[in-house]
Amino acid sequence: MAHPQKPVLLTGASGNLGRVLAQGLAAQGWTLRLTDIAPFPDPLPPRARFVQADLNDGVALLRQAEGCGAILHFGGISVEQPFETVLGPNLRGLYHVYEAARREGARVLFASSNHAIGFHERPDASGPQGNAPKLDVDCALRPDGYYGLSKAYGELMGRTYWDKHGVENVNCRIGSCFPKPVNARMLSTWLSFGDLIRLATAAVLAPRSGHCVIWACSDNPASFWGKDHRDRIGWQPQDSAEAYRAEVGHIVSGDPVEERYQGGGYASIGYSRSAPSPRDAFALD
Amino acid sequence: MAHPQKPVLLTGASGNLGRVLAQGLAAQGWTLRLTDIAPFPDPLPPRARFVQADLNDGVALLRQAEGCGAILHFGGISVEQPFETVLGPNLRGLYHVYEAARREGARVLFASSNHAIGFHERPDASGPQGNAPKLDVDCALRPDGYYGLSKAYGELMGRTYWDKHGVENVNCRIGSCFPKPVNARMLSTWLSFGDLIRLATAAVLAPRSGHCVIWACSDNPASFWGKDHRDRIGWQPQDSAEAYRAEVGHIVSGDPVEERYQGGGYASIGYSRSAPSPRDAFALD
Amino acid sequence: MAHPQKPVLLTGASGNLGRVLAQGLAAQGWTLRLTDIAPFPDPLPPRARFVQADLNDGVALLRQAEGCGAILHFGGISVEQPFETVLGPNLRGLYHVYEAARREGARVLFASSNHAIGFHERPDASGPQGNAPKLDVDCALRPDGYYGLSKAYGELMGRTYWDKHGVENVNCRIGSCFPKPVNARMLSTWLSFGDLIRLATAAVLAPRSGHCVIWACSDNPASFWGKDHRDRIGWQPQDSAEAYRAEVGHIVSGDPVEERYQGGGYASIGYSRSAPSPRDAFALD
Amino acid sequence: MAHPQKPVLLTGASGNLGRVLAQGLAAQGWTLRLTDIAPFPDPLPPRARFVQADLNDGVALLRQAEGCGAILHFGGISVEQPFETVLGPNLRGLYHVYEAARREGARVLFASSNHAIGFHERPDASGPQGNAPKLDVDCALRPDGYYGLSKAYGELMGRTYWDKHGVENVNCRIGSCFPKPVNARMLSTWLSFGDLIRLATAAVLAPRSGHCVIWACSDNPASFWGKDHRDRIGWQPQDSAEAYRAEVGHIVSGDPVEERYQGGGYASIGYSRSAPSPRDAFALD
Amino acid sequence: MAHPQKPVLLTGASGNLGRVLAQGLAAQGWTLRLTDIAPFPDPLPPRARFVQADLNDGVALLRQAEGCGAILHFGGISVEQPFETVLGPNLRGLYHVYEAARREGARVLFASSNHAIGFHERPDASGPQGNAPKLDVDCALRPDGYYGLSKAYGELMGRTYWDKHGVENVNCRIGSCFPKPVNARMLSTWLSFGDLIRLATAAVLAPRSGHCVIWACSDNPASFWGKDHRDRIGWQPQDSAEAYRAEVGHIVSGDPVEERYQGGGYASIGYSRSAPSPRDAFALD
Amino acid sequence: MAHPQKPVLLTGASGNLGRVLAQGLAAQGWTLRLTDIAPFPDPLPPRARFVQADLNDGVALLRQAEGCGAILHFGGISVEQPFETVLGPNLRGLYHVYEAARREGARVLFASSNHAIGFHERPDASGPQGNAPKLDVDCALRPDGYYGLSKAYGELMGRTYWDKHGVENVNCRIGSCFPKPVNARMLSTWLSFGDLIRLATAAVLAPRSGHCVIWACSDNPASFWGKDHRDRIGWQPQDSAEAYRAEVGHIVSGDPVEERYQGGGYASIGYSRSAPSPRDAFALD
Repeated sequence: MAHPQKPVLLTGASGNLGRVLAQGLAAQGWTLRLTDIAPFPDPLPPRARFVQADLNDGVALLRQAEGCGAILHFGGISVEQPFETVLGPNLRGLYHVYEAARREGARVLFASSNHAIGFHERPDASGPQGNAPKLDVDCALRPDGYYGLSKAYGELMGRTYWDKHGVENVNCRIGSCFPKPVNARMLSTWLSFGDLIRLATAAVLAPRSGHCVIWACSDNPASFWGKDHRDRIGWQPQDSAEAYRAEVGHIVSGDPVEERYQGGGYASIGYSRSAPSPRDAFALD
Repeated sequence: MAHPQKPVLLTGASGNLGRVLAQGLAAQGWTLRLTDIAPFPDPLPPRARFVQADLNDGVALLRQAEGCGAILHFGGISVEQPFETVLGPNLRGLYHVYEAARREGARVLFASSNHAIGFHERPDASGPQGNAPKLDVDCALRPDGYYGLSKAYGELMGRTYWDKHGVENVNCRIGSCFPKPVNARMLSTWLSFGDLIRLATAAVLAPRSGHCVIWACSDNPASFWGKDHRDRIGWQPQDSAEAYRAEVGHIVSGDPVEERYQGGGYASIGYSRSAPSPRDAFALD
Repeated sequence: MAHPQKPVLLTGASGNLGRVLAQGLAAQGWTLRLTDIAPFPDPLPPRARFVQADLNDGVALLRQAEGCGAILHFGGISVEQPFETVLGPNLRGLYHVYEAARREGARVLFASSNHAIGFHERPDASGPQGNAPKLDVDCALRPDGYYGLSKAYGELMGRTYWDKHGVENVNCRIGSCFPKPVNARMLSTWLSFGDLIRLATAAVLAPRSGHCVIWACSDNPASFWGKDHRDRIGWQPQDSAEAYRAEVGHIVSGDPVEERYQGGGYASIGYSRSAPSPRDAFALD
Repeated sequence: MAHPQKPVLLTGASGNLGRVLAQGLAAQGWTLRLTDIAPFPDPLPPRARFVQADLNDGVALLRQAEGCGAILHFGGISVEQPFETVLGPNLRGLYHVYEAARREGARVLFASSNHAIGFHERPDASGPQGNAPKLDVDCALRPDGYYGLSKAYGELMGRTYWDKHGVENVNCRIGSCFPKPVNARMLSTWLSFGDLIRLATAAVLAPRSGHCVIWACSDNPASFWGKDHRDRIGWQPQDSAEAYRAEVGHIVSGDPVEERYQGGGYASIGYSRSAPSPRDAFALD
Repeated sequence: MAHPQKPVLLTGASGNLGRVLAQGLAAQGWTLRLTDIAPFPDPLPPRARFVQADLNDGVALLRQAEGCGAILHFGGISVEQPFETVLGPNLRGLYHVYEAARREGARVLFASSNHAIGFHERPDASGPQGNAPKLDVDCALRPDGYYGLSKAYGELMGRTYWDKHGVENVNCRIGSCFPKPVNARMLSTWLSFGDLIRLATAAVLAPRSGHCVIWACSDNPASFWGKDHRDRIGWQPQDSAEAYRAEVGHIVSGDPVEERYQGGGYASIGYSRSAPSPRDAFALD
Repeated sequence: MAHPQKPVLLTGASGNLGRVLAQGLAAQGWTLRLTDIAPFPDPLPPRARFVQADLNDGVALLRQAEGCGAILHFGGISVEQPFETVLGPNLRGLYHVYEAARREGARVLFASSNHAIGFHERPDASGPQGNAPKLDVDCALRPDGYYGLSKAYGELMGRTYWDKHGVENVNCRIGSCFPKPVNARMLSTWLSFGDLIRLATAAVLAPRSGHCVIWACSDNPASFWGKDHRDRIGWQPQDSAEAYRAEVGHIVSGDPVEERYQGGGYASIGYSRSAPSPRDAFALD
């Protein structure tokens, strides 16, 4: 099985997705360097090394990245939290990851999120015709909270490091990565663990990526999302949420804000508008 | 002369642009609340109050904003600096400003910058024809460094607060605001002090602004920039850099990166690519 | 059952008293906003919302308080600890609570403590006659340690916010709030959970409170304490520690400092005087 | 001239009052240890040593206090400032000073302030008769802001260290210590430099002080203040502000809050009540 | 059984060696003051007191040391960790321990480590003859990482406090203190729990120690180490690792760096030389 | 004139010695990267770049070092200060410098100090014969305070990085580097600016240095110091303090501690022994 010539650094290795990736990529023969602020809860995979460290400690992160050809950045706060909680691990942490990548000439796979664009309306919520176009990745960033803002910031930092330093980066706007869908929204947004592993594999092994953005969901017919840069890395999802429609298709929140926006429940946390912001809020005449 | 019904908070009041605005807006009869981490160096204008405070102290900032109808956010680091220097005043500071605005139902005028999009090429650098189209404000964000990233982050935070809380914000991508142009690039980017004061005035007094973005340069024929949302607030610049062409039109840096990109010298700080990133780096097929 | 028109914010919700209040007040139909630095360990009561946050994060606390009509401040360090441990959650935390209350026009119920006056002698320890007068709430503050100092500071901050901003605050000097008394001292100081819930209810529902101070113990015949402002809020304790005399009346520490002063064991932590400070230490001639 | 057997530590030595004391006490033959966060701006007095250090650095402060018999604590923020600015130097700083005093068996002279009781009304503002009684030091603490709260906290910490550890402390509620009065209020509150030096001298040389509180103003007929513990240390002011009545007696602010309360302008900073808090706010029935 | 006249402070009391010492020394009748950042996991020994505190809090540590005649400093990070993790507890913590000792006139037993000299080669690795001389304690310090650097720093701080203030300190370069040896290297480096307790006992009870350094391993024939200052305190180890040779003598790592240097596995963490540094790296001609 | 192939990073560039080096080395045609926490006060030399940054910001320092072949580390606190003041710039700063050097394969010239060994007695103070041997660089480290400890720590860190990573480092124990000697001690310890520049030049240009230590004083007949590793880099001082004997030879402090020890006045700061520590404090039997 093809594997990278250099070790791959995985941040957030002790988190849910980190553990899936650590196991899945090691099983493909990859040499991994794992790091997290929490201890690694599983047996260490073959060829892997784990260093416990805080993403706020940049000099330590740079050292862990030495010799690596890619950084899979899954570390940091992964849910909506107060700004001050998000600041250190996510904003400062991104800077440390990108400095590490620049130093190593490494490519970054950034675990971005649909919450970076969570205030776009869902296609089926956009008008009477129920047939609104899907969203392409070159849409405007519309973060749905402090977490989403940190993800949008990460995409922009990736762009700056590409423009200024030629650091390649693959920004994966992850939908909902769980063992299986648990509500109707995930029929659109679900990313299977298998598709996640294949996405990480493609992002690392692709000969060239430049700065690109990918909708990280499985091959779901009900997906909100359209064009992206997946051809750059040659990724195609193989699973589909549709098989779970009977099981979860009726599970909706009843919250009109949550159901209107792509970010779902994150959009409604603290929502205080009397009416949704107009679709043309950013349009030019 | 028309003036706002409520006081207006001005951050960064002790800086160069802050002092220009404090004097210019007070002269129009406005009631100002001034704040800065440094003492205010001028005689306090009539109806103004000054509180010395750090943008990192959010509870203090929220208190200063009480009763204000608008916040002119000119505080924070205003040049390219190491990330850690920018983090507190600019990223955390923005959060404090937007929380203040949300609490007060106040509008924000954010002193954004051309450096939020500084890695777009200049029109005259884009191809053999020398006739490239000007850049519209709905272009992709392409920050040219840590300072530019903080400005892009501020624009996105403005968008989130508009989408989620209905906080209006006018994001002014300031070109080069100096007494007069001092080099050829400023023939494109110069913003006169008079146009700055008129811009702040329009941004505060406009009946509605929503979330909008404006190219903050004077009426320069050589401007890099095209469409924006200035009609929303009814601003038109009245000065022009062109009168200074003979004086400064020959002053160029000789640095090819600086001359290629809109961000000028900021784009070249630490630049380490062997070749510019392709124009189509973000294009979809 | 009467309940407040606006939601009520409860800090320290995950602590022992916080959990009692969350359950007890929700059972009366109240709408609660709960917060704590630790996760809430119980099932979330009806109409309640929980946000995990640090009392050091003032902007987050102000946001949690939005729309609330009262703040029950039970958060922070609740036992004697080194000064540096107490500083952030208790002193800075109080400032954040009072700024929140001022912004909202909310009333504060502050969980003060007998340790704010713990160096007053117990009535039965004051002289040969064993018949010393009980202590009224307008006695001098005599904190018995860093924890007690933080409680006295909180009472004074309440006074300042009342004098300067009209923020009402009910300072409850809690004795010993446990399921039942466990030693002889608690025959004087015990506050039953039922009386605690009734006290919080009265403090929130009273039409006016101003700045007032209340001895928060049950209707114990052996109480150390006399007059207070309970009439302002119409609270009367209904339980009594006396029923436990046979069970615990013989349980004393044998430490003469602990038994002499109202603060009990807290007074003796680190005590280093050769003789008690004279009763007239603060008397004027 | 009598002088202490041990060296005396003076914090805040580089401030206005610190410089007056350093010069005045050294001229009496005292051995001084001076410290401040800012360099000492004057020639070092004979027998004096200066160490530049932050009051936040407790271990350094404890070391400076070694061998000293008294600490004159004039350091920290000395005007109304945002809470966060006051926290470190004033609250944490007090803890460091008292730990130093406990370790050394040293007496503390604490530069408290009238702002610890600034929300008491001025005698001439209290009623139609213009003849209200003067305020005694055993009045309730009524701080007029964050600065005043830090001073009240310091008095309480002094009380705790006296009760628990036998640390003597003289709390001087300084009125207005300037070369001469500059407005009508200072006819009541002025403390001359000479009386300041004599007060510090008496406080250090008195055989016993216990915990006591003193109104630190000169012998002003118009003083707001009555009984205190000055007999404990044998201090009598010798100067009077009355001589300046013709010069400054007409200088009033015109601000009704400032003129009503003893704290003057500090009481009116941020004042937001619609009516003053009732005189009986703390009275028991 | 002889025991010290004053209490003995033990830092790191909740760690593995701390727990062994707490139990062993209390069993000898000693009065102990225990402290750790983590709760003490065992029943509190007789005559012992435990205070939970951070080694970064110097004022708290100084207070815990009051009245103590000796400090056994076993606190801080005890394995190789990133520099930033080591900095506070180990470097700052040492300063707090030595200031405490200076104030109390107490002797320090510092749990130094073989990692302070870990880059000396093992005797059997030094040359063809396999008969290299053992290492004496006056050898050059050659730390094998950030942990080892903190231990070397502690030894030097001990020397400075001895030279400048007469603070006595016994620096025990602990080899491997475990219930029993678990690999071949520990046949050289093992320190039995019994020898540890006897070492601490001797270090505290010795009439004079000055500044001295001791190889803290049991009476192992295969020890790497030669002369030290054990005669100063009259300690002789009584156990030996040799009995475990059959059991563990074949357990080697196979890592040539680990097997070459005295520091073992610590020396190989992050090792990146192409060839070992020459033996004469510090020699003078 | 020979100059390095790669740029040279100079920390502490805005300090006294930094300015001398910046000017002197630039005059030799070197390409310099300058950094300091304070602005550079002089005109920027040719081929030099200046970045203002804090030594606590490691990621920024690593970036400044990119591409450099040597780091002249003159930054940090340069006089005796409280420990907490020294900690960040000196201890953490050293770590950042060495990580930078390791990453770049750069050699470090560390501005160590005689205060790392300041508690060795001066030759002429050591005994009746007045003819004590000079001190060689392989003597034991005997720091004379917190500043000296930070310098000793830096030498040890250099040793670890050499042993573990092959980072070369030249540790220059600077005596007294001033325009000319100003007291009798400097007849022994003076280093002329010219010799400093030649030393830095030799340290950078030498083909190999390994880890070495050099007495950085001019060719003073009265020097305290003997053998060192100067041959490794081929440096010979050319100036001598002796010419100033008539001018300053009579200027002594009169302080017996200061005159006894090589560290001079630093040794006497806070000195509290009743008698000097014995010469044989570290000797083995």
